[in-house]
Amino acid sequence: MSDKFFLLETDSPDGARAGVLHTEHGEINTPAFMPVGTYGAVKSLSPDDLKNADTQIILGNAYHLYIRPGIETINRMGGLHKFIGWDQPILTDSGGYQVFSLAKMREIDDDGVTFRDHVDGTKHRFTPSMVMNVERTIGADIIMAFDDCAPYPSSLDYLSEAERRTASWAAVSKESFESSEPLYGYRQFLFGIVQGGTQKELREKSAEKIVSLDFDGYAVGGLAVGEPEDIMYELCEFNASLLPKDKPRYLMGVGRPVDLIECVARGIDMFDCVIPTRNGRKGTVYTKAGKLNLNNSTYKMDEDPIEADCSCSSCESFSKGYLRHLFKMNETLAGRAATIHNLHYFNALMSEMRKAIIEDKFNEFRDEFYLMRGNKK
Amino acid sequence: MSDKFFLLETDSPDGARAGVLHTEHGEINTPAFMPVGTYGAVKSLSPDDLKNADTQIILGNAYHLYIRPGIETINRMGGLHKFIGWDQPILTDSGGYQVFSLAKMREIDDDGVTFRDHVDGTKHRFTPSMVMNVERTIGADIIMAFDDCAPYPSSLDYLSEAERRTASWAAVSKESFESSEPLYGYRQFLFGIVQGGTQKELREKSAEKIVSLDFDGYAVGGLAVGEPEDIMYELCEFNASLLPKDKPRYLMGVGRPVDLIECVARGIDMFDCVIPTRNGRKGTVYTKAGKLNLNNSTYKMDEDPIEADCSCSSCESFSKGYLRHLFKMNETLAGRAATIHNLHYFNALMSEMRKAIIEDKFNEFRDEFYLMRGNKK
Repeated sequence: MSDKFFLLETDSPDGARAGVLHTEHGEINTPAFMPVGTYGAVKSLSPDDLKNADTQIILGNAYHLYIRPGIETINRMGGLHKFIGWDQPILTDSGGYQVFSLAKMREIDDDGVTFRDHVDGTKHRFTPSMVMNVERTIGADIIMAFDDCAPYPSSLDYLSEAERRTASWAAVSKESFESSEPLYGYRQFLFGIVQGGTQKELREKSAEKIVSLDFDGYAVGGLAVGEPEDIMYELCEFNASLLPKDKPRYLMGVGRPVDLIECVARGIDMFDCVIPTRNGRKGTVYTKAGKLNLNNSTYKMDEDPIEADCSCSSCESFSKGYLRHLFKMNETLAGRAATIHNLHYFNALMSEMRKAIIEDKFNEFRDEFYLMRGNKK
Repeated sequence: MSDKFFLLETDSPDGARAGVLHTEHGEINTPAFMPVGTYGAVKSLSPDDLKNADTQIILGNAYHLYIRPGIETINRMGGLHKFIGWDQPILTDSGGYQVFSLAKMREIDDDGVTFRDHVDGTKHRFTPSMVMNVERTIGADIIMAFDDCAPYPSSLDYLSEAERRTASWAAVSKESFESSEPLYGYRQFLFGIVQGGTQKELREKSAEKIVSLDFDGYAVGGLAVGEPEDIMYELCEFNASLLPKDKPRYLMGVGRPVDLIECVARGIDMFDCVIPTRNGRKGTVYTKAGKLNLNNSTYKMDEDPIEADCSCSSCESFSKGYLRHLFKMNETLAGRAATIHNLHYFNALMSEMRKAIIEDKFNEFRDEFYLMRGNKK
């Protein structure tokens, strides 16, 4: 993808990067955050809500979409963009993580995984080439190779096996991808995933094999699965240093605002996480001063918006007092309004980091970020 | 309210009417439909969604708002309009119906009702003057007198008692209203409610007493509580004929599209009902050809919107196939999209009736309405 990804500025040789990734559904300015729309909808939001929150790209999940509504439906409806009414970029995760975390009775062999789904226990088999076909049919702009994502903690033996399978499946994925065509008239990019858990030697081995296959971009997988924060940061930095500079780097499943800052500082360009959406639906909202819980009785008669200088539609329309009332009444408008605010906050954070990197002020931005939160994480 | 309500056209001496009601939060073109926002939010919708669906006025409930968030909160937040971020007209029901249908262990006496609420069983006492204070504090543009709404079926004795109490409470309500001032700088209108169940003599007696108190408008209460449709229509027509022509007439708790047409034909100007919102959240949507259920597997791969020539934001954005998928996944966007469509349909129906009345074509409109549905109700 070096013809489609341009690095505009780097903070330091191994530090924060600002870039732009060109897809046929529009540009993605990096660093970028991708809200999670597992089943083809970011929970509680419409496409217009997503755009109002300055969302550049959303993430869908091949595992979930394969099960419901199924790829025949998505194909008949003209692909995922058309099906869900979203004309900006989409990335699909391959389902590797979900097969290992959600599915039941899975049997892994060197060619793929046989499992029963989490919905009604129907038996399925995922192989790397079959998953490429699923992701071609869904039609996201960026699709992920099928990987074996080990849980934390895992034995060295298990991590080693998972690394070996991930590399072998990556080769099959690449081959299937190259021998097939996109179905809906626009180019798809294929990203490879590096595994290796918390073992640096395995990460090194994995990165070498995956990078040698020459993907359009690279994901750091198997982190943020339960390991301590300092280990995650260390491995993120180590793994990023193993990846080519001219291609986008995606840290899967991360994270909190502080994680986004720390991992951008360590050379990551793209992130996805359910934190802003899932927490928003429960009443937790993010501000420059840290997070707050709108269910708290403190806000009962609070006439101020979530954040005074926030330009999101929720802060323009609603007080914390009204949002607290809506949360107490289980009105879905509450979760929607909090989600819009949180995505706006996350997207603004990425865009402010990008601006700081370009202006060569990333470290000052990071210091200021911590200062405003009273140095809390 | 004859200084604020103008009849533009009547279809026949006792028939359909087109008018306009001027409030300090804007005009209400009648006939008008009011979506129900019990707790200060029309379920699943934001104020912008309501406006996009051409909503003129929403209904809140004094009983529910008194219990949660409580009138002290609403007062401290500057009244209901400011609290919920809605700058168009609001009507509050007095809670008469709710005290009789939702509350527990109620004891009615001639001065009011003592009851335990449906949330945590706290004991409350509602009197007509106390309810006026509650509705002054909530601050809706139109507020309702506290009434005794008898269930269906009720004995003649019970209906007679309820009629007597309703009239006595209406007098106290009027007096309390006139001896108090609005709290937020804009005028409030007080509507009286006629009761009498299915007994014409009682309706006659009730209307005579209520009308003699000279309210700003009149509601037909105690219908659509379970009685057969033909009886409802007959009593609606009879009750409307007992009301002054120069004031707005509000049929409470009605109804289906067919009920709106039939009761506009019988001289009603205003309606409220949970049908478009509650049914929408469950997947039932209204079209010119009748209603349909989006959960039906027929729509799995349906690329068309709910209604081909509908201009609502849901029909502009989503196919029936995608909405069915969202309903299956319990995504709240589904209920929101269906609710927006339904309110748009209901509001358009009212506006088309209004246009037909003004053009002296109401009967043709009614015939055409039934023709398009294949003469189904």
